[in-house]
Amino acid sequence: MANPIAGPEIERLIQLLARLPGLGPRSARRAALHLLRKREELLAPLADAMAVAREKIVICEVCGNADTCQPCTICRDPSRDPGLLIVVETVGDLWALERAAAVRAKYHVLGGTLSPLDGVGPKELNLSSLVARCVEDGVTEVILAVNATVDGQTTAHYVTDLQSHRGIKTTRLAHGVPVGGELDYLDEGTLAAALRSRTDF
Amino acid sequence: MANPIAGPEIERLIQLLARLPGLGPRSARRAALHLLRKREELLAPLADAMAVAREKIVICEVCGNADTCQPCTICRDPSRDPGLLIVVETVGDLWALERAAAVRAKYHVLGGTLSPLDGVGPKELNLSSLVARCVEDGVTEVILAVNATVDGQTTAHYVTDLQSHRGIKTTRLAHGVPVGGELDYLDEGTLAAALRSRTDF
Repeated sequence: MANPIAGPEIERLIQLLARLPGLGPRSARRAALHLLRKREELLAPLADAMAVAREKIVICEVCGNADTCQPCTICRDPSRDPGLLIVVETVGDLWALERAAAVRAKYHVLGGTLSPLDGVGPKELNLSSLVARCVEDGVTEVILAVNATVDGQTTAHYVTDLQSHRGIKTTRLAHGVPVGGELDYLDEGTLAAALRSRTDF
Repeated sequence: MANPIAGPEIERLIQLLARLPGLGPRSARRAALHLLRKREELLAPLADAMAVAREKIVICEVCGNADTCQPCTICRDPSRDPGLLIVVETVGDLWALERAAAVRAKYHVLGGTLSPLDGVGPKELNLSSLVARCVEDGVTEVILAVNATVDGQTTAHYVTDLQSHRGIKTTRLAHGVPVGGELDYLDEGTLAAALRSRTDF
């Protein structure tokens, strides 16, 4: 134990905080001390919020989103086009696209990417429910919003092959220059893609 | 609200996590998603550990340390020299010195440094109890283990003045080259101090 003098309760809090992404042993210690200093303003509400999250938040059986209702708010939303389905890897990607607020579509969270080396095959992802949804909901367009990584693109090709015989239009996110980005800092692949997909000004 | 679609419970969890030192809005979102993914392995134990910490951990009335007993484990420890008192700014500094395990002394946590511009005067720090302890416990040496910052050194001088008429020996941590440190990366002040305080080899 690195810090036995602080007592097992504090030590346990530090060890658990250190397992959060972005926190290591040292920053977890700082976070624990901060929590102990701000006991009523931060420690108490955070403990309550975690207990509430643990109890109330469920994974939507339709799309895989995390929410407090089943099915989730997005799946229940009648103002969204049920024919337009955005396929994402994770709930975090879904949230990122919702913040962009560009399309009133529904989502399907795969829960990862195909990665044979890590033992992630088609059965480990939400793929069979995706096929079922496309048929039941009369989906006309699937937007593949997977990451532009090798695993992401492999998964995108697999999803496309699944849908190919159903005549459902499949699209992917555009490649190009990030808004506000500087050309000098971009890689050649992105610049080449941005040139190939140039639009009228 | 930056992320209304995730529901108020998740949003509240993210906002509270973002108030931890070392986490911003984006990393708090990642941490919240990680917690939801690892519900039973991490979210549940962390919520419990926080509830335990909130309930059980108290600030020692003698020295200002955080522990589950009153007075704290260090203050109760009969194997420590009661005549040797290390004055630190924060509980984090106390833990850091305990990890070094170099001296079996007792501690006194000031709770910060004198900082008139921030409205921190002598009354905001644990100074009166320090004076009382020095008399009651028969302290023979006070080690000033405050940070080597302007505010830390101001506080060190103030503490020295408080004790000066009592004939208690007051020492401070040595300045010098950090163990494992490279000279080329050190500032001139540290190198000058290391040269002045050179020791026989």
